[in-house]
Amino acid sequence: MSSVPKRQKLDGAEANTSAGPNEEESEALEQIDACQNEIDALNEKASEEILKVEQKYNKLRKPCYEKRSELVKRIPNFWVTSFINHPQVSGILDEEEEECLHALNKLEVEEFEDIKSGYRINFHFDENPYFENKVLTKEFHLNSAAASENGDWPASTSTPIQWKEGKNLLKQLLTKPYANKKKRNSEYKTFFDWFSDNTDPVNDEIAELIKDDLWPNPLQYYLVPDIDVEPEEEEENDDDNDEEAFDDEDGEDGEGDEDDEDEGGD
Amino acid sequence: MSSVPKRQKLDGAEANTSAGPNEEESEALEQIDACQNEIDALNEKASEEILKVEQKYNKLRKPCYEKRSELVKRIPNFWVTSFINHPQVSGILDEEEEECLHALNKLEVEEFEDIKSGYRINFHFDENPYFENKVLTKEFHLNSAAASENGDWPASTSTPIQWKEGKNLLKQLLTKPYANKKKRNSEYKTFFDWFSDNTDPVNDEIAELIKDDLWPNPLQYYLVPDIDVEPEEEEENDDDNDEEAFDDEDGEDGEGDEDDEDEGGD
Repeated sequence: MSSVPKRQKLDGAEANTSAGPNEEESEALEQIDACQNEIDALNEKASEEILKVEQKYNKLRKPCYEKRSELVKRIPNFWVTSFINHPQVSGILDEEEEECLHALNKLEVEEFEDIKSGYRINFHFDENPYFENKVLTKEFHLNSAAASENGDWPASTSTPIQWKEGKNLLKQLLTKPYANKKKRNSEYKTFFDWFSDNTDPVNDEIAELIKDDLWPNPLQYYLVPDIDVEPEEEEENDDDNDEEAFDDEDGEDGEGDEDDEDEGGD
Repeated sequence: MSSVPKRQKLDGAEANTSAGPNEEESEALEQIDACQNEIDALNEKASEEILKVEQKYNKLRKPCYEKRSELVKRIPNFWVTSFINHPQVSGILDEEEEECLHALNKLEVEEFEDIKSGYRINFHFDENPYFENKVLTKEFHLNSAAASENGDWPASTSTPIQWKEGKNLLKQLLTKPYANKKKRNSEYKTFFDWFSDNTDPVNDEIAELIKDDLWPNPLQYYLVPDIDVEPEEEEENDDDNDEEAFDDEDGEDGEGDEDDEDEGGD
């Protein structure tokens, strides 16, 4: 910055330098600006280094994930079981969708090379009574300068599902009564509803749960431990705070924080 | 894992292996578990490397921040002006608090050595008519294994304010009519209310804005650009959506925004 802009919007009555910055202040501001540039440059370098670390480990993890995918194929219903046992993802599984997801034999999450720009989730299916596709892909373009220039950022896309005749679960769901769903969910009604919906790519909670929770460690859901399950209690609170119930996986989210007012007293 | 637990919670009617995993499946599960351990180990190493990068850059940034703090001292009301011009932080500034914050001569954000475990915000004050403290500190312990063992995680603490006689802004605020506040805010009523409140350390929006937005680059708020302000239109909507008002940018008292209105047309 070569010229130093004046401050604005500071309430005139309270400003003690109503004439704008004097010479010393202007000089200080320019030096602060120089500091700021140094800080920005360091931030950028830090981001680059972190990206490189992430890329390195993505490469290192890849063979493990591939090996895991092969092993998973030897276990019938591995993925559908993991989905059913996942506290949030289970919430969007309609009964018939669950049936359909028995054909899901492989799940893949692929981050794009520059990581921040997005990722895709590939659902690989066996031959099944519901649709023709072998792979259904949902892809998120979130943070790419290139995409941004094209004006198509952020965005998500999903493979059009080629439903077999009379088997379109989305259409069926539309006509089913609400009560038919296994669980209610604040955001998405059902799995294929989520899959097909690309209206809010930025905050796709289900996609993030698949990418950051199920994909890194599905075994913890496939093999559900006895602990950590209190469905009864949660059931009761659900009406009030569907959104919270959806967010909050391990109940850490204290309920009693409404009254900040008690605080200040003494 | 030496013994392979059975799957649980899989709907009995739908499970096609109701007798539990057979030998081949058990073997596959053990191998998946081994994969999982490899992945976990890689994740841990990745986290460690990223932490090191972050620590390295925290050290590199430190002298810049210190230099900036010294420069800022040469500019009267730098911080209070930046607060007032910040779209969200301004929302919690009561008029008299604003007066009081003219004595704020230095702001510091310190991340703890291991970064993830928390951070503190130090507010340094000149001698002032409101309280005796030279420094007010708000500290967040968010993610520390050690703290967790003590059962005091997550938590925040704040320096008890030694108000001068008749100058306790918190008490005054409690007795003031609501309308006296400069702006309404969805979460906190006022700055010192926020400062003193430690009921919800995890999602402290104001603290995060100070740490992640104001602290990294206050100059952008001190020097408010002309763009991006349409106070008239927003004013009209205010009654309906208080919560949104908290997120949005609008000006303080509307004064001095006149120039901005001339902007659009030509």
